[in-house]
Amino acid sequence: MKAIISLNSGSSSIKFALFTLDGANNPALSAGGKVERIGIAPSLRVRSADGDILLERVWPDGASLTHAELLKDISAWAAEHLGDREVIAIGHRVVHGGTEFAAPRLVDDAVLDALEKLNPLAPLHQPHNLAAIRAIAQLRPKLLQVACFDTAFHHDKPAVAARLPLPRAFHEQGVRRYGFHGLSYEYIARRLSEIDPVLAAGRVIAAHLGNGASLCAMHAGKSIDSTMGFTALDGLMMGTRCGAIDPGVVLHLQTQLGMSPADIEDLLYRKSGLLGVSGISSDMRTLSASGGPEAEEAIELFCWRAAREAGGLIASLSGLDAFVFTAGIGENHADVRHRICGRLAWAGLRIDEATNRDSALRISTPDSPVAILVIPTDEERMIALHTLQVIRKDPS
Amino acid sequence: MKAIISLNSGSSSIKFALFTLDGANNPALSAGGKVERIGIAPSLRVRSADGDILLERVWPDGASLTHAELLKDISAWAAEHLGDREVIAIGHRVVHGGTEFAAPRLVDDAVLDALEKLNPLAPLHQPHNLAAIRAIAQLRPKLLQVACFDTAFHHDKPAVAARLPLPRAFHEQGVRRYGFHGLSYEYIARRLSEIDPVLAAGRVIAAHLGNGASLCAMHAGKSIDSTMGFTALDGLMMGTRCGAIDPGVVLHLQTQLGMSPADIEDLLYRKSGLLGVSGISSDMRTLSASGGPEAEEAIELFCWRAAREAGGLIASLSGLDAFVFTAGIGENHADVRHRICGRLAWAGLRIDEATNRDSALRISTPDSPVAILVIPTDEERMIALHTLQVIRKDPS
Repeated sequence: MKAIISLNSGSSSIKFALFTLDGANNPALSAGGKVERIGIAPSLRVRSADGDILLERVWPDGASLTHAELLKDISAWAAEHLGDREVIAIGHRVVHGGTEFAAPRLVDDAVLDALEKLNPLAPLHQPHNLAAIRAIAQLRPKLLQVACFDTAFHHDKPAVAARLPLPRAFHEQGVRRYGFHGLSYEYIARRLSEIDPVLAAGRVIAAHLGNGASLCAMHAGKSIDSTMGFTALDGLMMGTRCGAIDPGVVLHLQTQLGMSPADIEDLLYRKSGLLGVSGISSDMRTLSASGGPEAEEAIELFCWRAAREAGGLIASLSGLDAFVFTAGIGENHADVRHRICGRLAWAGLRIDEATNRDSALRISTPDSPVAILVIPTDEERMIALHTLQVIRKDPS
Repeated sequence: MKAIISLNSGSSSIKFALFTLDGANNPALSAGGKVERIGIAPSLRVRSADGDILLERVWPDGASLTHAELLKDISAWAAEHLGDREVIAIGHRVVHGGTEFAAPRLVDDAVLDALEKLNPLAPLHQPHNLAAIRAIAQLRPKLLQVACFDTAFHHDKPAVAARLPLPRAFHEQGVRRYGFHGLSYEYIARRLSEIDPVLAAGRVIAAHLGNGASLCAMHAGKSIDSTMGFTALDGLMMGTRCGAIDPGVVLHLQTQLGMSPADIEDLLYRKSGLLGVSGISSDMRTLSASGGPEAEEAIELFCWRAAREAGGLIASLSGLDAFVFTAGIGENHADVRHRICGRLAWAGLRIDEATNRDSALRISTPDSPVAILVIPTDEERMIALHTLQVIRKDPS
């Protein structure tokens, strides 16, 4: 029996999932884990497919542990857990595929070099994604590794949706609207086509509302627009990221308030959004439980902006047939779904309060012109599926 | 007989209009003019209400002429033109009223000081607006001057539409969404209530599409949202301004491309938009006439983005009853109106091609669920009306 590992290596965390393959090569989740707070006080928790905790580990005095060292530990545990099931490939989430990588790709030195050139387009994510690939290559030089891109699902969207209103030279240098969360949206598109092929063939907005958050406009399962653009800072208000703001604000922070680029980056990526507006927390659960006026203001702004951005995507789609909620907030916060759908009633969204409370698959009323669904996302499975597909096509 | 002057003093131009007042104090346009290219090669053209040219003037070697010196010349010509009609007040367009000024205000030293404090919020416009007030005060110390604010019309919009997703302290320091083009929108709201009071009581998007461009969502004649935010750089793509772009782009220009704040400002305000994308011109007339692929790309992006932003405002309004085009492009470019309305057909906009070609007042089909109108704006008249109202209330 064989196995595949999905890996998502970020600046301060490493998420992974182990999938075993049956005879027909269908991946079945065997375990999923996450190392958090890398560089501060790393801790690891691994759960089985049923949610049972398989492993909890902390590294006392582990602040100096590198991603590579932690990957080595994860790898050793995975080998032990999998026993005689052989890992045939590792699939990586890589945030940026630029204009070149429109599909998952088997990694070799040339690919890695090309991906490294994209670091300036995603300086906070791309280097960590690639460092993990290099670390695994050191550890297991012969193991096949596949890069799966968050941008790829959006690669073929209409030209008008990719262009920024800047001089042409910038577009040619790669300063364009890419869109992210592509692995999540691709998974949603795939699941929707299984659940309701007629809806999946229509005009759909998928709302990936997690700590990072975006909307994707899909027509017949293809991305045609997204709220995230050049970076993952654009669009919706997020846990700590501001989302779309007047570029004049950034100029004001620079020229009038004298903030340095590093301070502005820290402000917009790590101190804004739900955290900044509430002054309390970046976590929707904490804000919902708080009930205070600042928390309420943050939730209301989050929902107002989500509905407003959705209006923009409905324009890109020329109408709407279905709206899908996914990711942490989207899957679990009935109140947020209620508020966003309420603000989109004019577009034909009629939410059913009872099924919404239960986070059921379908939460619209039977007569709602637009279907509303809650579909849990599974980026790790999407990575595993891509990885399998690539190594079957290109077994090297 | 009495007269009022409207003045709009910018960085490189001064626009003015002379209105005479009949017995009932209704302002009638007597002449309107504009000095352009101040600081380079100033030239002035004044037309009568019928469009006849009353005066054309250039200042050879006039590059060093200040706004104050040019205002003196304009003032002298106005006095001569008006003859025995006494100028009882001058109304000024002032871009920023901040959070304090919710209505036009008679200017005194305290008001001027308060407005000067807002310079950092609109460094490209506010200082020029206020310099003109100071220059006139020197010239005619006893003349009443009224400041009319571009932000005032948006002052009472819902709190959620004024808030940026930044830490609360920034909001309290004035870093919030204001909205601009308020004098134009107020004029449109007023005209619409005369033309069709039922529509004016409903949900309306007004599209001020000029060299600067924005959309305003109005409900019952009040602004409830706008595409311009903290500055006049946000929202729609414009002649040379980028409009809304991912704040991550600004960070990229700083940290990855090493551009200075001044260079970024120059890029986003003066080299982007229609000019940047086409590489040809910021002028929609030139682009329409060009027919080349770059010009077509710029026009298409302009219209796509306008429709997308309109979708956002329809969400803020929870639906739409009327769409009004105004300003240079909005009043004159049937093709642009055709494209934007085509992209909003899903929202109930059905354009009538024949009346659209003629730029008629009503350009929607009789059965269009959303009425589409073309209403010429008149910010100068709005300033005159405000000025009259203020000095009648507060004759000092």
